[in-house]
Amino acid sequence: MPLNRQFRLAARPVGIPKPSDWTFAEEPVPDPADGTFVVKVLYISLDPAMRGWMNDAKSYISPVVLGAVMRAGGVGRVVASKHPRFAVGEHVVGMFGVQEYAASDGKGVHPVDPALAPLPVYLGALGMPGMTAYFGLLDIGRPKAGDTVVVSGAAGAVGSVVGQIARIKGCRAIGIAGGAAKCAYITDELGFDAAIDYKAEDVRTALARHCPRGIDIYFDNVGGDILDAALARLALHARVVVCGAISQYNSTTGIRGPANYLSLLVNRASMTGMIVFDYADRYAEGARDLGAWRAAGTLKSREDIVDGLDRFPDALLMLFRGENMGKLVLKVADA
Amino acid sequence: MPLNRQFRLAARPVGIPKPSDWTFAEEPVPDPADGTFVVKVLYISLDPAMRGWMNDAKSYISPVVLGAVMRAGGVGRVVASKHPRFAVGEHVVGMFGVQEYAASDGKGVHPVDPALAPLPVYLGALGMPGMTAYFGLLDIGRPKAGDTVVVSGAAGAVGSVVGQIARIKGCRAIGIAGGAAKCAYITDELGFDAAIDYKAEDVRTALARHCPRGIDIYFDNVGGDILDAALARLALHARVVVCGAISQYNSTTGIRGPANYLSLLVNRASMTGMIVFDYADRYAEGARDLGAWRAAGTLKSREDIVDGLDRFPDALLMLFRGENMGKLVLKVADA
Repeated sequence: MPLNRQFRLAARPVGIPKPSDWTFAEEPVPDPADGTFVVKVLYISLDPAMRGWMNDAKSYISPVVLGAVMRAGGVGRVVASKHPRFAVGEHVVGMFGVQEYAASDGKGVHPVDPALAPLPVYLGALGMPGMTAYFGLLDIGRPKAGDTVVVSGAAGAVGSVVGQIARIKGCRAIGIAGGAAKCAYITDELGFDAAIDYKAEDVRTALARHCPRGIDIYFDNVGGDILDAALARLALHARVVVCGAISQYNSTTGIRGPANYLSLLVNRASMTGMIVFDYADRYAEGARDLGAWRAAGTLKSREDIVDGLDRFPDALLMLFRGENMGKLVLKVADA
Repeated sequence: MPLNRQFRLAARPVGIPKPSDWTFAEEPVPDPADGTFVVKVLYISLDPAMRGWMNDAKSYISPVVLGAVMRAGGVGRVVASKHPRFAVGEHVVGMFGVQEYAASDGKGVHPVDPALAPLPVYLGALGMPGMTAYFGLLDIGRPKAGDTVVVSGAAGAVGSVVGQIARIKGCRAIGIAGGAAKCAYITDELGFDAAIDYKAEDVRTALARHCPRGIDIYFDNVGGDILDAALARLALHARVVVCGAISQYNSTTGIRGPANYLSLLVNRASMTGMIVFDYADRYAEGARDLGAWRAAGTLKSREDIVDGLDRFPDALLMLFRGENMGKLVLKVADA
């Protein structure tokens, strides 16, 4: 009988998660009960938001319970089914957790077509990060042609899509990323108009150079100093999309608030938080546009794949060390 | 020949303004040139925003030039006119500065009727503070009946009107103010549903008690700790109106950003800055509603009047010490 290997949450991390914050467990692969099915997980999505799910704090989603399988999105293949809508052999995405097999009643699970895109893409540009970029930029940012759009974490799963959609909508796209390789990637491969290397240059000065008429839309994935630099450069009636704050998630001294928030007042600007789950009833719209752009070649993506379930704890930290280029994915099995 | 006594900006203040940041000057009362008129200033508006105008920083309005008459709103009477639309004897409001007489070409000047309301009211509930409350709450806050509206600086010129309009629109109004007298004023005289005395109780605990379902609209005049306490209590899809940050204007160590800003993300909430001048083409709409509510007795106001132009420097500081109840006005002349 095959075993299901899992990472279960063992402790609430203080600061940067340690390997001992999870326990590695093995249990029998479940049999599907009536109305459920079992997925063999092939790829697991690694997301900055996972750090927040480990905290015991009220948020947009309940914390992962101590002892439970670590929450994660994933893509896999149905290997057993007593569910009328999910057949064995079908590929699906959903919140399957950090484990090799997951039982599901189908809630929040969607079929995907491996002939249209490699499976990891359904965890990135055609998955939740793509949807986050799509609805965050279009619904909250409300871009108009000619707008200057700045995005942080620009080489990441969400940021890379934000900049490309901005371009598709006729905006100038400026990406902020760490290191020359990421900056070259977003300008040379993804077509951003400019990149700012926050490790090598003063972001505030660079924003002044690249955004002479100010920033119309700032899509923030990082918080901290970079958020403050962007706030200092807002154009009149700018929209700031608060999608994440990866620079702050492991802080042990509390979150640093944006000292330049009064730029919202000076510029009659707004700062609005977004959670992609709110757009669940419009995912089909996002999937249609993102898929069409990908097919047309105007939306590109890269997946940064780490091989092996057992590498989960360290692979997750790559996000916080800024080591991933594009969507970070943990490969669990070949097929 | 009568003299025009004035306060002119002498220095950019560091921290709390000192009397020596202005010079007291006297010059002849101007004669009106063609197309202009001269106003005898009767009351001068004292506003927290004046502190910002003294800084040499890019903002929504240019700084007061060193040596120039200190910028201020005021209400007065036309005493000489070569202007086709402003006749001698007429009462007017406008940006007349901290002085006894002002020449004007009529730009931004509006007639007021002293028979409808005492002149100082045109600097408060029926003036810019009233307009700020009106457009900030209704346009940015978008209240729905049943919403919980929290306002800081609730006994001040703007906050007191915000809470009353909230009540008129069927919302629950919770005011945050400093001291028992102000709290009694806003609940007993103005009809707020509850008051929180930030000097006597923990604001966060009190907000939890008064807003069991969270805050739908937070109208912020103060910034700092109170903004953070309100952010921590936002309801889903809450709207934060950033109108001012009086707790921060004299800081010599920089503005403190709201550490709880990620509550915007958790609650899919927005924080939006507003400047009343943007609504200039809709002032008539605001004046009509505010006037009607005042006539009906549902909008009350108090004006806190300090007598004597020479008391300007210290009177302004009353705002930052939280000593005023209602609209703070400097009386310059009787008629």
